[in-house]
Amino acid sequence: MKKLNVGILGATGMVGQNYVRLLEGHPWFEVSFVAASEKSAGKKYSEAVSGRWHMPAPIPEAARDLMVEDASKVGKAVGDCSLVFSAMEMDRQAVQKLESEYAAKGLPVFSNSSAHRWTEDVPMVIPEINPDHLGIIPAQQRRNGWGRGFIVVKPNCSLQSYLTPVYALMKAGFEVKNMVLATLQAVSGAGYPGVASMDIVDNTIPFISGEEEKSEKEPLKILGSIAGGRFVNNDSIKISAHCNRVPVTDGHTACVSLGFGPKKPGVEETIEIWRKFKALPQELDLPSAPKQPIIYLTENNRPQPRKDRDNDKAMAVTVGRLRPCNVFDLRFVGLSHNTVRGAAGGGILNAELAYKRKLL
Amino acid sequence: MKKLNVGILGATGMVGQNYVRLLEGHPWFEVSFVAASEKSAGKKYSEAVSGRWHMPAPIPEAARDLMVEDASKVGKAVGDCSLVFSAMEMDRQAVQKLESEYAAKGLPVFSNSSAHRWTEDVPMVIPEINPDHLGIIPAQQRRNGWGRGFIVVKPNCSLQSYLTPVYALMKAGFEVKNMVLATLQAVSGAGYPGVASMDIVDNTIPFISGEEEKSEKEPLKILGSIAGGRFVNNDSIKISAHCNRVPVTDGHTACVSLGFGPKKPGVEETIEIWRKFKALPQELDLPSAPKQPIIYLTENNRPQPRKDRDNDKAMAVTVGRLRPCNVFDLRFVGLSHNTVRGAAGGGILNAELAYKRKLL
Amino acid sequence: MKKLNVGILGATGMVGQNYVRLLEGHPWFEVSFVAASEKSAGKKYSEAVSGRWHMPAPIPEAARDLMVEDASKVGKAVGDCSLVFSAMEMDRQAVQKLESEYAAKGLPVFSNSSAHRWTEDVPMVIPEINPDHLGIIPAQQRRNGWGRGFIVVKPNCSLQSYLTPVYALMKAGFEVKNMVLATLQAVSGAGYPGVASMDIVDNTIPFISGEEEKSEKEPLKILGSIAGGRFVNNDSIKISAHCNRVPVTDGHTACVSLGFGPKKPGVEETIEIWRKFKALPQELDLPSAPKQPIIYLTENNRPQPRKDRDNDKAMAVTVGRLRPCNVFDLRFVGLSHNTVRGAAGGGILNAELAYKRKLL
Amino acid sequence: MKKLNVGILGATGMVGQNYVRLLEGHPWFEVSFVAASEKSAGKKYSEAVSGRWHMPAPIPEAARDLMVEDASKVGKAVGDCSLVFSAMEMDRQAVQKLESEYAAKGLPVFSNSSAHRWTEDVPMVIPEINPDHLGIIPAQQRRNGWGRGFIVVKPNCSLQSYLTPVYALMKAGFEVKNMVLATLQAVSGAGYPGVASMDIVDNTIPFISGEEEKSEKEPLKILGSIAGGRFVNNDSIKISAHCNRVPVTDGHTACVSLGFGPKKPGVEETIEIWRKFKALPQELDLPSAPKQPIIYLTENNRPQPRKDRDNDKAMAVTVGRLRPCNVFDLRFVGLSHNTVRGAAGGGILNAELAYKRKLL
Repeated sequence: MKKLNVGILGATGMVGQNYVRLLEGHPWFEVSFVAASEKSAGKKYSEAVSGRWHMPAPIPEAARDLMVEDASKVGKAVGDCSLVFSAMEMDRQAVQKLESEYAAKGLPVFSNSSAHRWTEDVPMVIPEINPDHLGIIPAQQRRNGWGRGFIVVKPNCSLQSYLTPVYALMKAGFEVKNMVLATLQAVSGAGYPGVASMDIVDNTIPFISGEEEKSEKEPLKILGSIAGGRFVNNDSIKISAHCNRVPVTDGHTACVSLGFGPKKPGVEETIEIWRKFKALPQELDLPSAPKQPIIYLTENNRPQPRKDRDNDKAMAVTVGRLRPCNVFDLRFVGLSHNTVRGAAGGGILNAELAYKRKLL
Repeated sequence: MKKLNVGILGATGMVGQNYVRLLEGHPWFEVSFVAASEKSAGKKYSEAVSGRWHMPAPIPEAARDLMVEDASKVGKAVGDCSLVFSAMEMDRQAVQKLESEYAAKGLPVFSNSSAHRWTEDVPMVIPEINPDHLGIIPAQQRRNGWGRGFIVVKPNCSLQSYLTPVYALMKAGFEVKNMVLATLQAVSGAGYPGVASMDIVDNTIPFISGEEEKSEKEPLKILGSIAGGRFVNNDSIKISAHCNRVPVTDGHTACVSLGFGPKKPGVEETIEIWRKFKALPQELDLPSAPKQPIIYLTENNRPQPRKDRDNDKAMAVTVGRLRPCNVFDLRFVGLSHNTVRGAAGGGILNAELAYKRKLL
Repeated sequence: MKKLNVGILGATGMVGQNYVRLLEGHPWFEVSFVAASEKSAGKKYSEAVSGRWHMPAPIPEAARDLMVEDASKVGKAVGDCSLVFSAMEMDRQAVQKLESEYAAKGLPVFSNSSAHRWTEDVPMVIPEINPDHLGIIPAQQRRNGWGRGFIVVKPNCSLQSYLTPVYALMKAGFEVKNMVLATLQAVSGAGYPGVASMDIVDNTIPFISGEEEKSEKEPLKILGSIAGGRFVNNDSIKISAHCNRVPVTDGHTACVSLGFGPKKPGVEETIEIWRKFKALPQELDLPSAPKQPIIYLTENNRPQPRKDRDNDKAMAVTVGRLRPCNVFDLRFVGLSHNTVRGAAGGGILNAELAYKRKLL
Repeated sequence: MKKLNVGILGATGMVGQNYVRLLEGHPWFEVSFVAASEKSAGKKYSEAVSGRWHMPAPIPEAARDLMVEDASKVGKAVGDCSLVFSAMEMDRQAVQKLESEYAAKGLPVFSNSSAHRWTEDVPMVIPEINPDHLGIIPAQQRRNGWGRGFIVVKPNCSLQSYLTPVYALMKAGFEVKNMVLATLQAVSGAGYPGVASMDIVDNTIPFISGEEEKSEKEPLKILGSIAGGRFVNNDSIKISAHCNRVPVTDGHTACVSLGFGPKKPGVEETIEIWRKFKALPQELDLPSAPKQPIIYLTENNRPQPRKDRDNDKAMAVTVGRLRPCNVFDLRFVGLSHNTVRGAAGGGILNAELAYKRKLL
């Protein structure tokens, strides 16, 4: 099988580096194009990231000598690649405009940015939860007058630590009404240079700009439905989030309290549901899909970011400490790798799903 | 004025060292007696803590040469001191027994241990909240047949970050019904050696043994009442706690969501109540009392442990981020210094209160 | 006694904040003027540092409402203050030019910047080592045609952890020939935002730009002499430095190996020399001078940054682990607080010395 | 090919866990036997390490259900395995005695312990440096009256970060006379629970018990020769070491200054020597051997522990910052993974070498 050439927009940033790393040796995709800001353009990739390569492995050989293009020159990618991953760290409007231009040129765009998350016909996909949301793509293409190009986004990294386990219970027939959560989020989530060390050594920060809003609103779209060529939120769930930054490199933790409708799952029943949970990425055996999307650990001091973030290629959600809640019904702790499952890995999984769905 | 001689039981541990440090230059109390386990007994204090003195200042000169006594030899303290602070790190039953023996010998015991917290006539006191609970002491002395000895305890350190702000609202007439909280707790709370570095560098731990239960139950006694010579819990509040350990040396943070009865305070109103809040320790001008027990910060990224734990001699509770809650009514973040306000400083404040109440 | 009004240039940065904090309640100096970059100018000081105040205590009341001036408008400080502390974080040439302009306007400048450290008639002073270097000031004023203005600088923060102990041995008659040192430096030394957290959580960095050169060259000027109105280096010492950044907030550690000339001090002799060492700041009883400039600790795991950086108002150098060296003669570990002794506190001590020398 | 059954003594500790992890899927060896202290004996391996499994991946399936044996019952291993890896954390004499007993029972012992490092006929091997030291084994067996059993040890983890690069220069004909080094060592090196978090969060410790002595003495044996059936040190090198503990999970860094004899290598020449360096493990293509034993990085801020410790299966030594030294000739920074290259991985490489040498 011949691999598809893929491009990475924002390839020199934290998430972009993860794309480069994770796509090394990918069975379907091959990185043939890397783009970044104007000031990196014209350099070899290895030069452009020199002194700021953050991955725990050397730069893949195949990427070292790629010439970095200027991401704002949209035409460059055409011909060179069959799809692009977008991890551009620019302001919202600039990203929106550029991603639309790439789509208009016929390129499917798989984005990590929040820019298009609330565009009415752009699907925000976690493949284990709402793969059917890709069904909106023809409508999106029609509305924009695009040919084979389109835009798919993934949600904020903070959701990934708990939304799949919560969804697994909904899918099993339990209606979730209330969710109060507190996150402990890794510094890699802020990009680079991101959080200053003077703000986080021997410290935590009880605020991440925009993060609580995303944690409270994005699940409503993901769990929502399509009507009339646009997404309609599932407004039956109320979510309240406290987001904290902690001195951890990778891995977001969420402490979750759940209130259900009249039908409530028991503790053993919930663990059973989680352990048995499989979804479309597992059925299709997508290359980046975790074998077991939800791993439940019985030790009472788990999950922990350093010890559990890499479970199943860093693509699984690891949960633990399921127990009754004094105020609601159940509570638990969830964890996922924010720059893999919650960013580049999630974007790749979206592209793999689209590939199997014949959208590429 | 002649100072009262005081003793410290468990003087070589983390909390004991804080007692030694905080009592240096105290206007009413003077450390004349330090006791610890048998293996430290007979050494000079400076030798006993050599290589494991954790305070950010040298050992006070006056304490360096005190001979460490065996804390289990209760008689030693009699005559030598007028009261003892207990910070013994032994198992629950051993502490209960020893503290009772000290009280039986006529010594008021101000304890940081959880051993006697649920003894029916032992008051668990935060002086800004329930100073009147000291009123049970005569009944306690009668029941045990003790003379001037008695036992007063302080609650778990994790409560101090949020209970005073919550109480301030109750005192202002707002009934609190539900409280969901998540804590980010410092490693000093586990004593020494406590948390292993391999468990906490680049990591957090979503579990602290016994801590959630304490956070959920102890407030009910503190906010409760006395009836028939024993305490009766205030059972009208439901509390659910997630307790996390984070790589911070000192300072516990709590993310709190609050549900009220029909009468609900507004955001501005709450800030006003907190800023104006004063209680008995402030009225009596106790030496260790913070001038302002609740400090509200308006910056949206505060409170932070490293930057706010030392506010007002590390005895204030610093709060911030008050905002409406999507699920309940209000939410906020609270912080206090766990080994000062939440441990030794809190114990000293209890003793200062008892002194002013003529109980010593 | 009426206090002298003083100004702080670069008052919103990390070192500037330390000046504001340390000068609170100073017996001789009163902060009446704060200046920073154009973008902070016109704001109240409390607003200008909002969200980025890094000190472990609230902003001093007296400073909160000072209007921040534009540091590049030199005239503003004239009349308003009797001297300025310079902690400006601009490029070298801009700082050189501005500091000279302040001096030309008649203001003594006490600088933390490296800009003028190698100006031939600017003294680089550690008051315990080379207070006599202030003697060059009349020559400096003559050459520049300045009235009462002049410039005094302090050396790089990394030196302070070991140069005073080394000098104490030189003063006692032992010639130092070779010095090999490795430093473990705190992140506060890089200012704010400075070191990115992704570069330092669970990590160290074996390089700090320009730091090794400063560590190797600046001591030669400090230990040098004045001849013909300019400084002449002491070139008899060879120094080799490895500088590392470590995840510590404050406090630089240095591991030092020393080779002497034919006359070599013994271990006990060296400790005795250090313990007895007093210098001019102690004789003059300068307000910021540590009572004991060199504190020797006998515990074999000290000095440690978190536990020893605050010794004697964070102005002492704490040393330990003195022992023979297999390659040279002696080796030891030194530590000092880099943003106090090594920055703002050192600048204040220089100004106190100048004041007592009637230079202000 | 049928795999050899191997045993792990001390399998529940930090290094033991690394053995279990690294031997998963090994082409020649299969873990059939795990032993630990009496209190773990009789449990399944997964139970024995529950709550204290520190590896960044789940417990290998094949090891989960192995029954943990009591390591002091030497007979148990006989028949069950063809060799044992020893990572026992007991006192020196107990380890010496037990390792000798295992050897006496006919089992080759590959040890990480320091217990037998100075036994006169026990080789201390880094396969890239002194593979010929295995030649002493027949003499060792004769002296002890052992059959096919013998003992091979690996040196202290701190050496691995710099000794191979230094040896590469010696092998190229440059005589090393003086070496001054300072290490920044990870907390995993102290085992578990090891370093208390209160000693290392926002802190470093300038002392590791016994570590400086090992760093200074063990290279002399490794670089020494065999004469009369015992090892003779290479005493022509003088080494002085400062060992520091830093808040890093894995990866020891060393800052090294080198003085040569009359013939001195240049900077470019040294880099060339390092880049071309290959040794017996590479020639034999041992499964755990790094392809390139010494990786030189040109970025001036490398090597860094979090980013470089995993290079080439965590078995390479990564070096950087080679530059002239003001006091000696050259200086550089070296780094290796202390619990892989410096511990379990090094032990496995020794066993692989012995296997190829037909010693098993």
